[in-house]
Amino acid sequence: MRYNWGTDRLAAFSDGVFAIAITLLILEIDVPDSSFDNLWKGILDQWPSYLAYVTSFLTIGATWLHHHLVFRQIAWANSALLRLNILLLMLVSFLPFPTKLMAKALTQTDTAERVAVFFYGVVLLTISATMALIWHQAVASDQLKPEVTATEITTINRLTRPFVALNVLVISSAFVVPKAAVFGYLLIAAMALLRRHHPQQSEADPH
Amino acid sequence: MRYNWGTDRLAAFSDGVFAIAITLLILEIDVPDSSFDNLWKGILDQWPSYLAYVTSFLTIGATWLHHHLVFRQIAWANSALLRLNILLLMLVSFLPFPTKLMAKALTQTDTAERVAVFFYGVVLLTISATMALIWHQAVASDQLKPEVTATEITTINRLTRPFVALNVLVISSAFVVPKAAVFGYLLIAAMALLRRHHPQQSEADPH
Amino acid sequence: MRYNWGTDRLAAFSDGVFAIAITLLILEIDVPDSSFDNLWKGILDQWPSYLAYVTSFLTIGATWLHHHLVFRQIAWANSALLRLNILLLMLVSFLPFPTKLMAKALTQTDTAERVAVFFYGVVLLTISATMALIWHQAVASDQLKPEVTATEITTINRLTRPFVALNVLVISSAFVVPKAAVFGYLLIAAMALLRRHHPQQSEADPH
Amino acid sequence: MRYNWGTDRLAAFSDGVFAIAITLLILEIDVPDSSFDNLWKGILDQWPSYLAYVTSFLTIGATWLHHHLVFRQIAWANSALLRLNILLLMLVSFLPFPTKLMAKALTQTDTAERVAVFFYGVVLLTISATMALIWHQAVASDQLKPEVTATEITTINRLTRPFVALNVLVISSAFVVPKAAVFGYLLIAAMALLRRHHPQQSEADPH
Repeated sequence: MRYNWGTDRLAAFSDGVFAIAITLLILEIDVPDSSFDNLWKGILDQWPSYLAYVTSFLTIGATWLHHHLVFRQIAWANSALLRLNILLLMLVSFLPFPTKLMAKALTQTDTAERVAVFFYGVVLLTISATMALIWHQAVASDQLKPEVTATEITTINRLTRPFVALNVLVISSAFVVPKAAVFGYLLIAAMALLRRHHPQQSEADPH
Repeated sequence: MRYNWGTDRLAAFSDGVFAIAITLLILEIDVPDSSFDNLWKGILDQWPSYLAYVTSFLTIGATWLHHHLVFRQIAWANSALLRLNILLLMLVSFLPFPTKLMAKALTQTDTAERVAVFFYGVVLLTISATMALIWHQAVASDQLKPEVTATEITTINRLTRPFVALNVLVISSAFVVPKAAVFGYLLIAAMALLRRHHPQQSEADPH
Repeated sequence: MRYNWGTDRLAAFSDGVFAIAITLLILEIDVPDSSFDNLWKGILDQWPSYLAYVTSFLTIGATWLHHHLVFRQIAWANSALLRLNILLLMLVSFLPFPTKLMAKALTQTDTAERVAVFFYGVVLLTISATMALIWHQAVASDQLKPEVTATEITTINRLTRPFVALNVLVISSAFVVPKAAVFGYLLIAAMALLRRHHPQQSEADPH
Repeated sequence: MRYNWGTDRLAAFSDGVFAIAITLLILEIDVPDSSFDNLWKGILDQWPSYLAYVTSFLTIGATWLHHHLVFRQIAWANSALLRLNILLLMLVSFLPFPTKLMAKALTQTDTAERVAVFFYGVVLLTISATMALIWHQAVASDQLKPEVTATEITTINRLTRPFVALNVLVISSAFVVPKAAVFGYLLIAAMALLRRHHPQQSEADPH
């Protein structure tokens, strides 16, 4: 049991990083002092910040959900998994920076907007690719719990892989229709949260 | 047991977000360098920041308490509950922004003050409504633990629902008497913390 | 068991707040851009920030240690204890603000220095008084675990009460010798950490 | 069992501090508003921030990994271990400050660069030395779990001690080739993460 390390404490440490990264996002939102003369307008003018906030919040939330789903199937973690997990956490912790950049750029010049939306998308893509890689690695190295069924493996494949492709699709539109691409990222995150994650829900009542 | 997920790790992740959001509130309080010539006055002049800090701290504290109370009764979490919980966490994480806005606006023009106090109240309202919805959803979808009694359901109904109505009441006064409304929010949070949460306290000693 | 709530999750939530407050302290330390021409001097000039950082870090660390010691003896938490605990967490979360104030004031005018050191001390005093009150309340309301001995109660009395008196002593010197008072706070925190917390260490090997 | 404290909650509290310190690092990265006219260049110009971010992230990640490895072997914590652990957490929490300093200095004068890289290295050195000391102390005071083998002790010795020497080596190059020294720190952190941590991997399958 002492050697079977990683899945419990690894998950707890990862949860901590997810929870902190998701909560730090708010620190970037502010209304400039000059807008207090017309505060309604000042609050509404921050819409790019809210859009970026909600998109990043849902993305980290969905990543946390998938992380859980994946790690619940894993019996033990080898070094490759540990390193991939560190990479994932580094990318998730990094997300507040492109989020802030995109929020600022959406009220700036067209070029800045395109660059910021593209840069943000690339970070999202690497996050979803790393998550898919973690699951692939766990399956390929036979680190799953013995009771995990082929159906469950397929379910999680369907939850992790398509998001890599979807992100590529939306990123490629970032230079043409940057604002639409942001809503594309939001939609991807919402889909990742709204998809059915529980194979058991089609089964009998778990009571 | 593997499918019965969500309540343990969901609660742990939520606890993390609550703990971080409540602790980040302090970052917004500062005394301007120009006030160091008369630091007593400088410290006292920040009273709107302290008022906003205590109100938001007690609000998040009370929300955490209710969250616990609710999730202790829940046997398993379905997708709807997961999504409502993500929404709740997003709103709680968002609270530092209207808190900062309100603290700044309380020393600004009358109009800014009214707008900021109203905006803050709307966020409080959505938090209390989401919490009430989570409990409603859990009861309606029969996700409670089998040993939860009707008395306990009623107790938690009484802890979650009235705060929605109270928030509506105080928000509606924000445009008339904004400063009084802030104390109203503080009072609501204090009440939420001070109400009796333990049906067992009227019973025999739990030892 | 379901009613015996609070001690586990309360401790976990409190741990989260302690861990975050202690880690946020570093955000206040910075070297002004103008000091990069002579960075050694620029780094050394920040000594008030380091002093304030270490003092607050050790204070929160010692408070966490005492919190643990106290909550390990408690079987169940009533509402009074819950509220006192929320108050303690609010004060600990507040500490980064007077810490920043004191760090800034130590390089400012004499008056600002005295006020900031006094204000900081008052927050420390309320923290230690709240901690002593939590322990007093738990003992008085008979919420301790049955196996807690009178010796253990005395040990914890000795760990919590004297710090209230020590803080009063040091605060009263803040207006006369403010810089010495800061070292007094540091000494109190170091003592709180270095005192013997383990009655069992005088007993047989715990293996 | 009540006396056997510290290893569980100590590890949980330490995990919290590690997770927060590692996530706060991102707050220091920003693109100045003036760079939004040419945002690609603005993003690329921040390379010292990314380099410092990745180095500190991997360093804290590796320290967390070693901390876990060490504390999994420890049966109970005495006061010396508690205090060394507080010191370790204080140093890890302090790391965002020299990280920010180094990121800024890498685009400044030569002298500032050397000083900042040296200062950063000294903090890394004290972190690795404190970690080695914690392990040394645990072994010397016979606080290990009875089932820990001599092989495991040797494995952990090899994981903690060399990093002290490696840090001394790289620091001593900071005044001659500061930029190379930064990559040296990065290499050390990567090595600490990539080394084999699992003596069991050479044994039979842990299933």
